[in-house]
Amino acid sequence: MSKLDARLKETADRINTALDALLPKPQGPEARLIEAMRYAALAGGKRLRPFFTLEAGRIFDADEASLMRAAVAIECVHTYSLIHDDLPCMDDDDLRRGRPTLHRAFDEATALLAGDAFLTFAFEVMAEPATHHDPQMRCKLIAGLAKASGALGMVAGQAADMAGDDIGSDLIAVTRMNRLKTGALINFAVDAGALIGCASDAEKTALTRYAHDIGLAFQMVDDLLDAEGVVRDTGKAVGKDKARGKVNFVTVMGADATRERVRMLADQAKRHLSIFGPRAQVLLEAVDFIVTRRH
Amino acid sequence: MSKLDARLKETADRINTALDALLPKPQGPEARLIEAMRYAALAGGKRLRPFFTLEAGRIFDADEASLMRAAVAIECVHTYSLIHDDLPCMDDDDLRRGRPTLHRAFDEATALLAGDAFLTFAFEVMAEPATHHDPQMRCKLIAGLAKASGALGMVAGQAADMAGDDIGSDLIAVTRMNRLKTGALINFAVDAGALIGCASDAEKTALTRYAHDIGLAFQMVDDLLDAEGVVRDTGKAVGKDKARGKVNFVTVMGADATRERVRMLADQAKRHLSIFGPRAQVLLEAVDFIVTRRH
Repeated sequence: MSKLDARLKETADRINTALDALLPKPQGPEARLIEAMRYAALAGGKRLRPFFTLEAGRIFDADEASLMRAAVAIECVHTYSLIHDDLPCMDDDDLRRGRPTLHRAFDEATALLAGDAFLTFAFEVMAEPATHHDPQMRCKLIAGLAKASGALGMVAGQAADMAGDDIGSDLIAVTRMNRLKTGALINFAVDAGALIGCASDAEKTALTRYAHDIGLAFQMVDDLLDAEGVVRDTGKAVGKDKARGKVNFVTVMGADATRERVRMLADQAKRHLSIFGPRAQVLLEAVDFIVTRRH
Repeated sequence: MSKLDARLKETADRINTALDALLPKPQGPEARLIEAMRYAALAGGKRLRPFFTLEAGRIFDADEASLMRAAVAIECVHTYSLIHDDLPCMDDDDLRRGRPTLHRAFDEATALLAGDAFLTFAFEVMAEPATHHDPQMRCKLIAGLAKASGALGMVAGQAADMAGDDIGSDLIAVTRMNRLKTGALINFAVDAGALIGCASDAEKTALTRYAHDIGLAFQMVDDLLDAEGVVRDTGKAVGKDKARGKVNFVTVMGADATRERVRMLADQAKRHLSIFGPRAQVLLEAVDFIVTRRH
């Protein structure tokens, strides 16, 4: 196992343990709601956003406990977004991570509410003193997370995604949509590590640019997998975007040009890390992981 | 116009103005999402929760700007909860405040996302320095709002409400459900005023008990209006709970016993305010407003 694989697995294990410990236990009249939250939260998943928060923070020897709490909060927002995105009125998906989506395993109302609860829980986790001794830092993290996730961030991206062709079918429109839908939260995951690590402005800028490039590359690979992948590898339905008339990088540029763009973004992302030297080795290796992943 | 009526109207006007100023303007590809948020937020509404925050804080001469920001954030959570509650997979309502519900006026996906955006926005507003100079206070407000709204608060109440008879059809189960579904956020609205006002523990306890009693009385009146009201007065469909086999105070106790209970709670709520003397005059008058309201 490479150092990167070991780090990814360690991060995923730690996030699972932390979520299991932080989420309420199923009991009383709301047991079903809590069971649904646990079904969605403890279903595996790559935990890429927490990985980025932890590894960005480690460049600056930031406090591990703070990084972990911020990473959990960000993963809660990601989990909520997947639950709501899968609902019948959105993407209407039946499979997620190789299992029935939450509204299939439970019911629509429970899935809607579990998503709402995760979004709320993210801010509760971030606001508590255990996340950081300085409340000013906690407020910055909360404001940053809210901006990245809200009406001018991730939610805007989901709205643009639902609008499909109406937002335009050119590369600019697709890029903008993906910057919001997946890029904003990935960017914040990296930013949170830099923030907790008290990075300098130059260091923050380098990491923000890195996050920008891997965020776009990540989505392009997603679109390639959707166009070419098989259910066995991805754990979710494939070929969906084309079937729904949705625009994505592959429908707009074709697979070859998308692959070429992924390579360019990967090289560029690595160059942004050069100012950190060997301290950014794990984030450097993560670039290749993201662009060569099969799921 | 009584002093109370004037205060209620003034609060509603100020909340409308603040929401209008704080919400993004509809432009670009996400214009429709923002339009939907504005449709839901600027539809009128009694603004009772903001009223409670402002009036509880005024007992202690708390900073008006802080109270207003907290009140706006709380109203954003309330707005999100109404939007999601009206969705087809929840109460499937067509009317709200005399107009089509958000998913009827727009579409389900947009309503879901607008609700998500409001919940997120609430925490963004609360986290920003404009809400309070002390970040410790902002973190306390955020944690309190999240707890009141989340998986062990309002969302739990909505889950229990959806479960209907399954949670039990006795007074204890119905009371518990309503304490969560509407009581938790009303309680936090009052608590937020006390918190910003740096109330003493005894003062906080008195206000929490007041909020507890008016929260329950408020819901009992809601159930009486649902059983007896007409669409013209309430601006929403009536007789819903009975038609859906849902349990509420009237289906469990009958209308007469519910009315009697409302009177008892009203008297008790007023007694909790006695330690404040004339400083709590507006909150005192609010009790009668709540128990005699026709919508």
